[in-house]
Amino acid sequence: MAVVHRFIGTDTAFDWEDVHSKKYDDGAAKGASGKILIGRDEGAEHFVFRYFLIQPGGHSATRDYHAHVHGVMILHGHARVTIEDQVYDLKPRDLIFIKPWEHHDLAAVGDEPMGFLCVIPNKEMLAKLEEEAK
Amino acid sequence: MAVVHRFIGTDTAFDWEDVHSKKYDDGAAKGASGKILIGRDEGAEHFVFRYFLIQPGGHSATRDYHAHVHGVMILHGHARVTIEDQVYDLKPRDLIFIKPWEHHDLAAVGDEPMGFLCVIPNKEMLAKLEEEAK
Repeated sequence: MAVVHRFIGTDTAFDWEDVHSKKYDDGAAKGASGKILIGRDEGAEHFVFRYFLIQPGGHSATRDYHAHVHGVMILHGHARVTIEDQVYDLKPRDLIFIKPWEHHDLAAVGDEPMGFLCVIPNKEMLAKLEEEAK
Repeated sequence: MAVVHRFIGTDTAFDWEDVHSKKYDDGAAKGASGKILIGRDEGAEHFVFRYFLIQPGGHSATRDYHAHVHGVMILHGHARVTIEDQVYDLKPRDLIFIKPWEHHDLAAVGDEPMGFLCVIPNKEMLAKLEEEAK
């Protein structure tokens, strides 16, 4: 049956019922945490919805680089998104599609945390994409 | 290169730069319009981001039924989502994952339009899913 996650967060830190936070710190990220919103647990086989919360001054992994794409909607705060040598200042509801093998990172600028929705293909597709890119 | 669509809408009718509306009226829907936000034009091969705007009293196709899944985030307004015989009243930022072959529709209740983000697998995957389901 369909799975519902009701919003229980605040305007500056989104959260949902029955969704658990995952520390997202691979050394290249700073002040970042992530949650899987719709993924394998919900029965999703084709894509994964994730939410990332970046603390002021923080950022996702610097110049992250991989085969899989990102479909992103900024949800709150002020984002500075760097794609290769291009910098985009984005606001809530702005969208960005990040293509394969584009160096990218998303930073929170200003005094508020920044949050965004990030959709990726699922694990099997990632494996396939990585394989194809070899 | 990455594609950005900046938000240029209002709180009750979302819109983005360089995104075009598509009338969505197959007879089974009422007061509904859709926009493709991230899809083939943006270079997305693995999923499609769509935005649907439902006018007060309107709804998506009644008891829509198909192999492909929906990942949904309510963006504004008050949604009444019916999945088979289950009814969910959802608010902005609530999430719902609709599984294959679940009868579903999303209606706008109250005086305001309701808008939601709906992610689906892309066309090739849909074709594959439909084929597998035969």
